[in-house]
Amino acid sequence: MPDAAHPYPSINGSRLIGRHRSMAAIGATGRGGVNRQALSHEDTQARQLLLSWSSARGYLAEIDPIGNLFIRRIGKQADLPPVMTGSHLDTQPTGGNYDGVFGVLAGFELLESLDDASMNANRSIELVVWMNEEGSRFAPTTMGSAVSAGCLALDVALNAVDTAGVSVRQALDEHLAALPGLGHRPLGSTGHSFVEAHIEQGPILEVERKKIGIVSGIQGMCSLEVEVNGFEAHAGTTPSRNRRDAVVAAMTLLERLRAKLHDPTDVLRFTVGRFEVSPGSPNTVPGRVVFTIDLRHPDVEYMLRCSETIRALSSGTVEACSVNSRLHLQSDPVQFAPSITAEIRSAAVRRNAPHMNIISGATHDSRYAARKMPTGMLFIPCEKGISHNEAESVHADDLIVGAQVLSDTVLSMAGVGP
Amino acid sequence: MPDAAHPYPSINGSRLIGRHRSMAAIGATGRGGVNRQALSHEDTQARQLLLSWSSARGYLAEIDPIGNLFIRRIGKQADLPPVMTGSHLDTQPTGGNYDGVFGVLAGFELLESLDDASMNANRSIELVVWMNEEGSRFAPTTMGSAVSAGCLALDVALNAVDTAGVSVRQALDEHLAALPGLGHRPLGSTGHSFVEAHIEQGPILEVERKKIGIVSGIQGMCSLEVEVNGFEAHAGTTPSRNRRDAVVAAMTLLERLRAKLHDPTDVLRFTVGRFEVSPGSPNTVPGRVVFTIDLRHPDVEYMLRCSETIRALSSGTVEACSVNSRLHLQSDPVQFAPSITAEIRSAAVRRNAPHMNIISGATHDSRYAARKMPTGMLFIPCEKGISHNEAESVHADDLIVGAQVLSDTVLSMAGVGP
Repeated sequence: MPDAAHPYPSINGSRLIGRHRSMAAIGATGRGGVNRQALSHEDTQARQLLLSWSSARGYLAEIDPIGNLFIRRIGKQADLPPVMTGSHLDTQPTGGNYDGVFGVLAGFELLESLDDASMNANRSIELVVWMNEEGSRFAPTTMGSAVSAGCLALDVALNAVDTAGVSVRQALDEHLAALPGLGHRPLGSTGHSFVEAHIEQGPILEVERKKIGIVSGIQGMCSLEVEVNGFEAHAGTTPSRNRRDAVVAAMTLLERLRAKLHDPTDVLRFTVGRFEVSPGSPNTVPGRVVFTIDLRHPDVEYMLRCSETIRALSSGTVEACSVNSRLHLQSDPVQFAPSITAEIRSAAVRRNAPHMNIISGATHDSRYAARKMPTGMLFIPCEKGISHNEAESVHADDLIVGAQVLSDTVLSMAGVGP
Repeated sequence: MPDAAHPYPSINGSRLIGRHRSMAAIGATGRGGVNRQALSHEDTQARQLLLSWSSARGYLAEIDPIGNLFIRRIGKQADLPPVMTGSHLDTQPTGGNYDGVFGVLAGFELLESLDDASMNANRSIELVVWMNEEGSRFAPTTMGSAVSAGCLALDVALNAVDTAGVSVRQALDEHLAALPGLGHRPLGSTGHSFVEAHIEQGPILEVERKKIGIVSGIQGMCSLEVEVNGFEAHAGTTPSRNRRDAVVAAMTLLERLRAKLHDPTDVLRFTVGRFEVSPGSPNTVPGRVVFTIDLRHPDVEYMLRCSETIRALSSGTVEACSVNSRLHLQSDPVQFAPSITAEIRSAAVRRNAPHMNIISGATHDSRYAARKMPTGMLFIPCEKGISHNEAESVHADDLIVGAQVLSDTVLSMAGVGP
């Protein structure tokens, strides 16, 4: 219950932990993690579960044309723009139990704890579940928030296909059919402000023994795709001099790229996460390789120079194969609103939660929310910084403190007075 | 019709060409090639078509426990071991219209041309369609002939799975259900001799302007699989020094292998045809890579030293990842029976077909047939040596000459007298 020192309601920690367990059961891989990729059957199940809790509370649920889900708790002044919070429920194919889901469940918990305390806020509060943050099934990453912010065309997103050839459009139709009774709203939802809680996905808070990271911004990122085209040939009969082997060319190109982009300070993040070889038969010289490069650096000028180097080297002919590249996505660094970081800091101070400023190495939906309204993020520590991994783990205490600081921040902005 | 110069019946060239076209329609990719992988729906359709032609002629059709198909035309002395001929109907995922199918259709053509001439041979003649020569869906290559020769255990073969997790056992059950009324025979079928006709899949006959390659043997081959295990991590947050990136480790290992195995004479064949990255998400540092190495050399000692070098380098730790390898298949070079090569040479001479001796760079089912009976092969040229490629092409005249020389060879051995 609120008192003078803590004018905001306490969240229900055991309920929050229990709901994490319920979500972790959906898409559970049996190795401690989950596979709940965007618009999959499992992603749909996760939203069905959240909506069942929401409807028990009488909240209003709506979905937009790219599949972002909104759950609104009406405030005293229903005509004011709402304070928004949320994250995502989709995961990597071998994802963990906290990435994304924590921000959604912490946001839902603050709505419920307000009800449990029989309190209300001036502004409505809206929980957002962004569609396809991970980008592992459908590229690009943060698809739903990018479309909502007008940074990615709806049609381009709907036409994206997974490796089985299924489009977002098809998957979304199935998804909607499984969520009957939802209201529909147009693209571009905005509000008074947006605050997202998330696990750090890096080692810094744990090393510094802090409970709360006040995120000042997100580093820049480029996502590229490189295509290498050679010529299929028989592995037993074709001499090297007659081959146009796409794997050999891709290897040579990657050697060159790694040498050229080597960063002795180890700040640049260069990742080849997907590398697809066609036809993929052991006794055929491969005719085609497509691989991705995920490139990040806090200094946008540095990042763009690296991206240009990749574009320049990934063109023309390499080892008798033709090479070309395309820039899938480029996002500049983001600075979050000082008004929001100040609110998070005040909340952390009031709850005696050790905190520090931090830059996000990962991108988040908040990148795009920041285009539309004052936006901020808070991080909680995760064990050894492990994320995008089934071994991802968070201490229960850190979950609860993080959700409480999120709740206080949102309720302060929504106008829950002492 | 046979005459003094050509005591054997002429094959029907236009029928042979037409049957190639009918087969090329099954699994046609729309880009000039076919995708008719072992025990797929398309492979089954191809066999159904062949069996419909066979049953119209009244030949006897049987299948063995690994799915090798036998079509027998009874000779005058039905109790003598048959002369066997044949090849395979399965293809690479982006295969051509002649690899394998030529040897099957040329073999079937000689049975029919014998009927059309109202002739018979002393020995029965048996056409074999070996199961899964290509090994692209299920490893290893030449599966059916290897099992038939006792060189690969039936259970091991039946338990092999494709990338979708379907086993040979499951796929074979479906295949058999679609081929009702077939007789069953035990493993290990053998005969008086085996002759296989095949396209060269290399450039030599075309360059040398020969119609027939008399194959003296098959070069040795090793098939290896290398596994690299790292640790999945977030691409945006994890510094290089903390990564165990399986793609980086695989690249480094392949650089080392290519440097160590470099062959200035360009006789060694070293191919990485499959390279699978897990989880394959653009923004996750990959935790696992599995790739194949197909290694061939006519000198078995040289090949084994290369294989040992690969095994030695593909062990322990590379770039903080653990690496190990296994030898999937190792086959020594094969020498074909001089009695068979002599028969093929006589037939080529009688038909005035320009011919030469040649070593096979590719492996073939004849490798395993040679374990059981006197075996030989003849090659016909293919354009620019292109094979395992949808652009694979053969001149109609070369198909016909090749089929005629095969027919004369088989009928001579089966005892069709002048």
